[in-house]
Parts: sequence; structure tokens; C-alpha cells
Amino acid sequence: MASSDTDRGPIAAGAAPAALPSGVTRELARYIVQARYDDLPAAVRKEGLRTLVNWVGVAVGGSHHETIDKAVAALAPFSGASHASVLGRTERFDIMNAAFINGVSSHIFDFDDTHLKTIIHPAAPVAPAILAFSEYRSVPGSEFLNALILGVETECRIGNAVYPDHYDRGWHITGTCGVFGTAVAMGKLLGLTEQQMVWALGLAASQPVGFRESFGSMNKSFNPGRAAHNGMTAAVLAAAGFTSSDEMIEARRGWASTISTRQDFREITGELGQRYESLLNTYKPFACGVVLHPAIDAAIQLRNRFGLKVDQIDRIALQVNPLVLELTGKKTPNTGLDGKFSVYHAVAVALVEGVAGEKQFSDRAVCDPVVLALRPKVVPTADRSVKAEQVDCRITLIDGRTVHTRIEHATGSAESPLSDGALEAKVLGLAEGILAQPQARRLLDACWNIEKLPSAAAVAEAAIPR
Amino acid sequence: MASSDTDRGPIAAGAAPAALPSGVTRELARYIVQARYDDLPAAVRKEGLRTLVNWVGVAVGGSHHETIDKAVAALAPFSGASHASVLGRTERFDIMNAAFINGVSSHIFDFDDTHLKTIIHPAAPVAPAILAFSEYRSVPGSEFLNALILGVETECRIGNAVYPDHYDRGWHITGTCGVFGTAVAMGKLLGLTEQQMVWALGLAASQPVGFRESFGSMNKSFNPGRAAHNGMTAAVLAAAGFTSSDEMIEARRGWASTISTRQDFREITGELGQRYESLLNTYKPFACGVVLHPAIDAAIQLRNRFGLKVDQIDRIALQVNPLVLELTGKKTPNTGLDGKFSVYHAVAVALVEGVAGEKQFSDRAVCDPVVLALRPKVVPTADRSVKAEQVDCRITLIDGRTVHTRIEHATGSAESPLSDGALEAKVLGLAEGILAQPQARRLLDACWNIEKLPSAAAVAEAAIPR
Repeated sequence: MASSDTDRGPIAAGAAPAALPSGVTRELARYIVQARYDDLPAAVRKEGLRTLVNWVGVAVGGSHHETIDKAVAALAPFSGASHASVLGRTERFDIMNAAFINGVSSHIFDFDDTHLKTIIHPAAPVAPAILAFSEYRSVPGSEFLNALILGVETECRIGNAVYPDHYDRGWHITGTCGVFGTAVAMGKLLGLTEQQMVWALGLAASQPVGFRESFGSMNKSFNPGRAAHNGMTAAVLAAAGFTSSDEMIEARRGWASTISTRQDFREITGELGQRYESLLNTYKPFACGVVLHPAIDAAIQLRNRFGLKVDQIDRIALQVNPLVLELTGKKTPNTGLDGKFSVYHAVAVALVEGVAGEKQFSDRAVCDPVVLALRPKVVPTADRSVKAEQVDCRITLIDGRTVHTRIEHATGSAESPLSDGALEAKVLGLAEGILAQPQARRLLDACWNIEKLPSAAAVAEAAIPR
Repeated sequence: MASSDTDRGPIAAGAAPAALPSGVTRELARYIVQARYDDLPAAVRKEGLRTLVNWVGVAVGGSHHETIDKAVAALAPFSGASHASVLGRTERFDIMNAAFINGVSSHIFDFDDTHLKTIIHPAAPVAPAILAFSEYRSVPGSEFLNALILGVETECRIGNAVYPDHYDRGWHITGTCGVFGTAVAMGKLLGLTEQQMVWALGLAASQPVGFRESFGSMNKSFNPGRAAHNGMTAAVLAAAGFTSSDEMIEARRGWASTISTRQDFREITGELGQRYESLLNTYKPFACGVVLHPAIDAAIQLRNRFGLKVDQIDRIALQVNPLVLELTGKKTPNTGLDGKFSVYHAVAVALVEGVAGEKQFSDRAVCDPVVLALRPKVVPTADRSVKAEQVDCRITLIDGRTVHTRIEHATGSAESPLSDGALEAKVLGLAEGILAQPQARRLLDACWNIEKLPSAAAVAEAAIPR
């Protein structure tokens, strides 16, 4: 006869554990409950707007991928009242299913925002939940932005506390930490008390999502979408008085100790309201892994600076960090997805088209004869002295001239953030073929101006094709 | 610049890992897809019926707990079409929300079935999902029973592969393994192909639920309920062609290696169709942790054998395993829940009332003056020579006589299973006050006869108060 799991038995874990702190979950909950929009520094608000702008772009952009077609077909029979929109489409779902679908959509292209310290994609779980809720119950735009920023702050801080061990072990950190961000953002809009927020965090902790083994399948995008659903469920239950532990994050058999070999709880509760992880959010200019970004950036810069035409180019010599060849060394990619793992394709298509968005990593693009002709002229050389964020690029022209640049920090990194204009161009590119351009423009305006909007639902309304 | 999580980088996990097998997920999926009701040995079918009978009892029994009141109130606004019942109540929900609520309900009293090798409560995640689905789309009773048995088999085998390390570390194993059981049981009813079943297992793996820190709060019952919801979501998506990894259970950065320090994959795929873990399912006769069961069992046996009346009793001397005092040593419990952690209350109330169901661990029972008078006469002594499954009980009467028994395996253990009659009495007790007795009797009949029913929905229909 084994002991029951109701027993508070002395079943020992492997190693003698270090002393654990108490009050982490409660301290975080208290901060979230008390944090007001008016307390946010201007720079934090601005970064929140950029996070929102980037997110609507990727959510609309992914909305007609087969992943979404399948999710919509699978879940429609079980959806509740049509309170919320699927961005970029005309179907409507209950707020939980809509949050799930929009969360999946925004991660499909791996083109969403990134908190580089943890590789969390912060918006994908949080934004779809609170946007769907805003269509159900009116939420002033400033409250929406406050919730979004607090959600991002929460998930990134919790991620910091367990990164890198948690990620190295195999967890898809966006899905495991994202659920906390969603729960507190939703909890904020639901007006939870401190105790309810503690329970929401506990119920959220109980629902981590995703392993890195999912990468390369639809399951990867599933993870942030399900984190949105889970966090929303946690907050809605807590609002009704559904209880949890008071110390789910920090307890011996709670989240952090069970899910990671390393925990630094000061990352969660240190300097709350003073240090903002959400300020470190970044936005990819190129629709592929960041390891390729310096090379693409260099190619586009030289193309634009010297007005290069493809038929002028004889050779593109790149000195790259060894990771570039290790991770993206495919010489003859056959699909758009393969193209994301080919430095040859990425640099060639960037020189041909001047951008490297999702359309440049399509099946069409990897078969384009002009790109194919340029591909063998891309000659990368691994060089240990070149850091991952650097590249040296020298293009030799048919006439013998050479042009050269060296990138220290690629555009889109924390050191060289994407400009607001480039962010807008990215969103407009993603919306192309889904929203008419004037409507895409209105969508951008709704996001940039959300602080003044009486209802955040205007963002969702502007993201539906008319 | 950090590497993106799309990179297949050589980020090393802590220790050099042993070689991992391949094909585990697929082999399991293939077995599930091919397994037919007609292949099940008679003893396995019979145990499946007992699992179902016990489950409907605990689901109905928990249905009016405040935990369910809160869940119903929280989720009603977002529920889809009213396809499925909440057992013991009159509300109806979409099949996913109904599966969640019935899953929570059946775990509230910790009175559900137990696979003692892993401490998994097998029915709680699986049965509510397939019963709700049976109300949505007609499912022959024999197919229902086959799906239930395959679901139980799957979760217990996967649990075996990671127990005890996974549980010791802090996971609530019913929630983490249960989701697999639900996914395959649902997948079976949805008629998934082998590849779809592989994906369903992958999506299920991505959604483990629950930590042991939740014990003592509503979050504990939440875990199997959410596992039901998660497994259902996994199967429904996979049926629509939503993809996952082919090796989510066994891959280096998949489920078992990330979630446990120990993996024995032979437990999952060894002797499929020959060794049945589902045969090892057990049903508690008493509504408390199994550590107390030998003492309660002894008290009730002596009471019944000698027709003992409370006012005859002078002293109840118990030789118990040391765990009994360690885990259930509360001398003066004040609430029903406290009573579950008091050997004094448990033995006293069992002698007074002749049973030890949920009503004997209520706030009413711990304040009953007759029980209170008997409580100090319970004298347990820890004895290392007494195993956890044993007890020695000697009751001294006022007139000086003594009666004595020694329990080797308490009723409800694998060695001394609860009889069908006792199981029925347990269910009737749980349904008391919720279903009229003739209806509770019809519910039992529907369960015992499900193999002959054209639609398993009859079980749900019989569990709704008329």
C-alpha cells in the first residue's frame, strides 16, 4: 500500500534543497494589484505601444496560415458566445477560444517580439487574452496598456528567475512563463483583490505549456496560444473565489523548484516598479532566427546605400560567427521554412527584394530564379572572432569594385532597436493581402493611440477585414 | 544578442544524457489505434466497469461542493452549446467545460480511484471527457468502455515510466499523466489515425497540470479537471490535422526527459495488450488518505462482528505504522478536512457510524458529541514492525472483555479489493441528498450495463437530478 497523495508525507526529493524564501507570490500579486497606469514611466508606455503594434502585425500576418484554418475548424463546434474576433479573419469565438487562436496566430512566423535575456516572446500569450476580454467588457485603452505592460513584466521577471536552466532542460519558456503574464494582465482587468491575484498566479503556475521538442511543428505556435487560454482560465476562476496555494511560485513542491534546477527569486520581486524588464523587449525586422539578422542587415544596408542591382553582384563574402553555419548552413533550401535555416537564401533574397519578411521565406521565394542565381555567390566564412551579434560583409561587383560594411549590432537588437517607422513597415507588410492598406493604417493608428481610446476593442475591430 | 528559440542550437543540458529510445510515442499510438473492445480480457472489462461506477459516485458526490459552485459561476459566461451535463446538477455546458467541471468534481473528496504504483487517480481526467463527448456524438457503450480502459492504461503506463522521481520532485502526477489518458481516450472516440494519435499525444504532453503545493486548496481538484480539458483539446486539434512532434514523449527536449530525472520507457510500450495496469486500479472505502484505512477497517470489522455499541467501549488500542501518527496525529480536529488528518476522529466516527465516507469527515461529524466522547479512548502506538498496510486493534469493553483483530491488507487495497456491493454502497452514500435513491440505483445499473447500451450518454442522463 503506497501513501496517498493527500498525505503530507516526508517523501524526500533527490538532493537536500536550499532554504526557500516565502512571500514571493504574494509580493508580486500585491504589486500587480496596486500598479496604476499613471505610475508607468513614459519610456515604458512607449515600449508597450511598440509591443502592441508588433503583436497585431504578426497576429494578422499569421491569420491565414493552415495552422489557424485547422484550429478554427477544430474549435468552432465548442465555442461559446461570439464575443471576440479572430484577427485578420471574419470568424468570431468566445473570449477564451479567441485568445487561443490569436495567440497561436501571432507566433506562427516566429516573427514576434523577443525578450532576449530569456528568449520569451512576451506578447503572444498576453495580448490576445486581454484584447479578447476588451471585446467582451469595455476596457479603457490606458487600462489595457497597463495590463499588457504588467503582464509582460511578470512573465519576463519569472523567466529571469529560472533562465537558462529551465530552457536548457527543454521547456518552451514562452509557454511556461507566458501563462503568468496572461493571468495577471487578465486579473488586472477583472479587478482582482490581492488574495485573488495570489490564487490566479497559483492556478497559472499549475498550467505550464510546451517543450522545445515541439519546434518545427504547429505545436510550437500552440504553446503561447494555450498559455493565453490557461492564464485566462486562472484569472476567471480566481475572480470567482476558486482558491490555490499562497506560495505556488516559491514553495518546495511548487513551480520554480519543480520546473527548474535554478531559481533566483530576486529577479521576480526585486525593484518592482523601478526596474522594467518590459523595456528590454525587441522586435525582429527579419522573419527568421536572430542568428541570421546581422548578415541580412548588412546586405540590405549595402544594397540601399549603393543602389546595388542584382546583376551587378559577383560575390558576397561574409565573416560570420560559427553559429551561423552551424544553425543556418542549408545550401539548397526547398521550402520557405527551409529558407529560414539557410544563410545563402536569406542573404540572396534580402539583396534581391530589399526586405526579409515572411514573404521572403515562402515557398515562392526559395524557388525564385533570380534568388537562385544569386544564392551560390553568397560565401560565408566562420570566424570565432566575430560575435553572434556581428558580421563583416564585403560585396564584390562584376566591374571589380567592392563595397563593405561591418555590423556591430543588427537592427532589431536591444542596442539598435527597430525604429517606429520600420516597425510600421513590418506590420503593413504582414497585413498585405489580408487588410486593405487604408485599414492596416487605421489599425496602426488605433494601436499608437490606444491610451486615448475609450475602449481597447477598437484595435480588434480595426484588425477584421471589411 | 541571444540565440532565437527557433535555433536548433547546441545548448547543453546539465549532465551528459544517456541514449534515448525512439518510436515510443508512435508505438503507443499504434497500439491505441488498433486496440478493439473485443480484444479486452473479461477481467479488464470488469475492472473498467468498477472504475466507471466509482467515478460516477465521486463526481455526483462532489457536485454541490463550493468548488463546483465557483467553477460553474466563473465559466458559464464563456461556455459554448449546452451539449453536456454537469453530473449531479442541472446546468449544461459545452463538452470541454463540462469535462473540466466533472473532472474537478470527482476529485474534490480525494475519494476517487487510485493506481497505487503511481498514486494516479486514473478516472478523474479521462471519464469526464469521454462522457461529455458521448452526449455530443453518440458513442456505443462498448466503445466508451474500451476508450476508458485504454485511457487509464496509457496514463498509468506513462506514470510508471517516471514514478517516483517525477512525483517526488513536486508534480501532481494525476494532472501530468492524466492528460495523456484523456487524449488517447478522446482520440479513440474521434477515430484518429496513427499519425493523428501521435500528434494528440504530443499536444497532450505539452500541457502537464499541477504541483503538489496545490494540495489543501481547490487547485488540487482543478488539476485533473484541467487535464481533461487539455487532453480533449489535444485530440480535437489532432483530428483536424494540427501537428506536433513525432517523438514528444521520448525526445531529448520532450516530455519525459524534461519533466523527470528518471525514465523507463519499457513501462510505456512493454507487453501492450498483455499486461494491463488498469487491472491494478483500486477504490477507497473510506474518504481519507490510505494511511488511515487499516485502522478504520479494523474498527468497523470489530463493530460489526461483535455488535459493539459506543457506550460499551472503554479503550481502543492500536498498533500502527509510524506514518499514521506522523501524518494523521491531530488530536482535536475542528473541521471535516482536519478530521482526515486525525486517527482519533477517524476511528471514533467509524465505530459510531459504521462507515467512514465523506459525511463522516464533515464539520458536523467532527463536532458530534458522541464522537467527541469516544475520541480520547483511541490510543494509537507507533510500531516500526507494523507495515503501512497493517494494523493491530484491541478494543477493551467497560465490562473488561476485549475484542481483537489484525489487518494485513485493508479493504480497498489491491490485495483486498472493495467488493462490488461495497462499491455500490459507497456510490449510494455519495449520491444521497443529490439523487433520489431509485435514480441512484438506475445510475448504477447504467454503469454496470454500459457494454450493452447503444449510447453511453445514458450514464450522464441518469446522473442528473430529476
